[in-house]
Amino acid sequence: MRHTVLTGDRPTGPLHIGHYFGSLANRIRLQDEHDVYVLVADYQVITDRDLPGEIRRNTVDVVLDYLAIGLSNTTIFQHSAVPELNQLLLPFLSLVTVSELQRNPTVKDEIAHSSQAAVSGLMFTYPVHQAADILFCKGDLVPVGKDQLPHIEVTRVIARRFNERYAPVFPVPDALLSQTPLLKGLDGGKMSKSRGNAIALKASDDETAALIRRAVTDAERHITFEPERRPEVANLLTIAGLCTGRAPEAIAEEIGDGGASALKRLVIEAVNEFFRPIRDKRRSLAEADVHDVLRAGNARAREVAVRTLDEVRQAMGYAFGP
Amino acid sequence: MRHTVLTGDRPTGPLHIGHYFGSLANRIRLQDEHDVYVLVADYQVITDRDLPGEIRRNTVDVVLDYLAIGLSNTTIFQHSAVPELNQLLLPFLSLVTVSELQRNPTVKDEIAHSSQAAVSGLMFTYPVHQAADILFCKGDLVPVGKDQLPHIEVTRVIARRFNERYAPVFPVPDALLSQTPLLKGLDGGKMSKSRGNAIALKASDDETAALIRRAVTDAERHITFEPERRPEVANLLTIAGLCTGRAPEAIAEEIGDGGASALKRLVIEAVNEFFRPIRDKRRSLAEADVHDVLRAGNARAREVAVRTLDEVRQAMGYAFGP
Repeated sequence: MRHTVLTGDRPTGPLHIGHYFGSLANRIRLQDEHDVYVLVADYQVITDRDLPGEIRRNTVDVVLDYLAIGLSNTTIFQHSAVPELNQLLLPFLSLVTVSELQRNPTVKDEIAHSSQAAVSGLMFTYPVHQAADILFCKGDLVPVGKDQLPHIEVTRVIARRFNERYAPVFPVPDALLSQTPLLKGLDGGKMSKSRGNAIALKASDDETAALIRRAVTDAERHITFEPERRPEVANLLTIAGLCTGRAPEAIAEEIGDGGASALKRLVIEAVNEFFRPIRDKRRSLAEADVHDVLRAGNARAREVAVRTLDEVRQAMGYAFGP
Repeated sequence: MRHTVLTGDRPTGPLHIGHYFGSLANRIRLQDEHDVYVLVADYQVITDRDLPGEIRRNTVDVVLDYLAIGLSNTTIFQHSAVPELNQLLLPFLSLVTVSELQRNPTVKDEIAHSSQAAVSGLMFTYPVHQAADILFCKGDLVPVGKDQLPHIEVTRVIARRFNERYAPVFPVPDALLSQTPLLKGLDGGKMSKSRGNAIALKASDDETAALIRRAVTDAERHITFEPERRPEVANLLTIAGLCTGRAPEAIAEEIGDGGASALKRLVIEAVNEFFRPIRDKRRSLAEADVHDVLRAGNARAREVAVRTLDEVRQAMGYAFGP
């Protein structure tokens, strides 16, 4: 069955290999069978530390990454370029209570991860924006990581309540659980550009090598794949496995007493080999390509959003005759 | 100096004479000297009791009232018909904190006056919507009643913070205080359609008479104008005064020992005389006139909103070249 899939990223900088194996690779598979909308969530990155221009540069980087990995058969668009999507926020806000928002794990996460002094109204209402993002295109399938299942619950509640109160306009979307293990950063923490522990998709061979050489391992020379007991070594083996299509256990066995330095050499080689075509493609692209893709994607998203908002206004009894 | 004025009403039913003397009459004066935008706030009336269609009927009623009283040189538009205005909600939400919203007197009022079981996300974010309503047209003057002064404070804060963080896009609007005494309902309570104590602008002569005959007065036969000691009698005298252009004290003196029944006869006559041309005009209008006015007003508001949103996206660094 053909689904409508909504997915996307916050433009916080270039995407990294954690993004690639965690979600981007999956989108490439999905785009051939489903209608895939890829949102650049440029309103979800406004904090009081941003400089104007930074979000724009990050948007360019993210879209270049999308094009480099081969997201071609999707609708790539900016959140801020689709007013009719954003308008859905208002009727949707009427369908949830303040205490539902306070209890929401997404909002709690947002607050916990925020470096802002105080919770903004934007952050507080985030799950409702997410509902507008998913439902504007009648998305019925939303790829999520294992820890993100509760994140689409508000969207499901809003879709159900709208349909019950007004008319059956929206699907109640399902989560599509990612099967990939979550990659850790090279220091053993969460992989994140801001921690400097992530290999960007667009990194050069040398940058990749330098990052991996600095990766945290442990004091045991003999390499084994034991995720619980030796998480950092296991993480490097997992990266090598994903890039070579081999089992991490087999790679560990092959290295054996070669130790961390042999492991790192192998990982450097594997990552640089695997991402070479993507990096070559990315270097061949120009900012004008981003403009073209966004112009087309924003226009297409807007067409869809106009239709959905019309239906919503009809269902709510707001529409006037021609 | 020419100002841009944003004002409006929630479409909760036909407007009454309290609205007329409290705000509508003032708009008629303002429209000749300023750019007046009149918002039908159709997203601010969504509650869990509404039936689809009710808001639409109420919107027609409110616009018919506007046309009947002579609001001709203004931009009358529906909140729900201007996506670019509504999109402003998102960047504006990033400029206020949850605790600022919780402390806001408008939100407290909303919560106190609500008959909903729980505070909705829409109600909680109301002051931010209001900021979008006022600032989309760069409104710099907002007519408010005496009890509403704090209501535009969030708008002023948002305008200032946006201008400081990004670029000087918005005026910091001022309140235009209403000079008219607040009319009470005919039962001495707050005048409100839902309490049945209000005379609708469109009421017939007979409906008006029946309502005023049932008005609460007091046990003293001799009529005097003493707002503190005899609020119900003073309210009727104020209505008669507003409709005839005379001082309420002079009307009281003229009636003297005529008592409540003479007073009511005089008020009935005064109200029906004063509103006759407005009621005649209203009867001459058809729903098609409402469609025409809204089509033109919505289009005009949208033009303005598109321009403002473009400026906002430029200032925030979201805009891409052509």
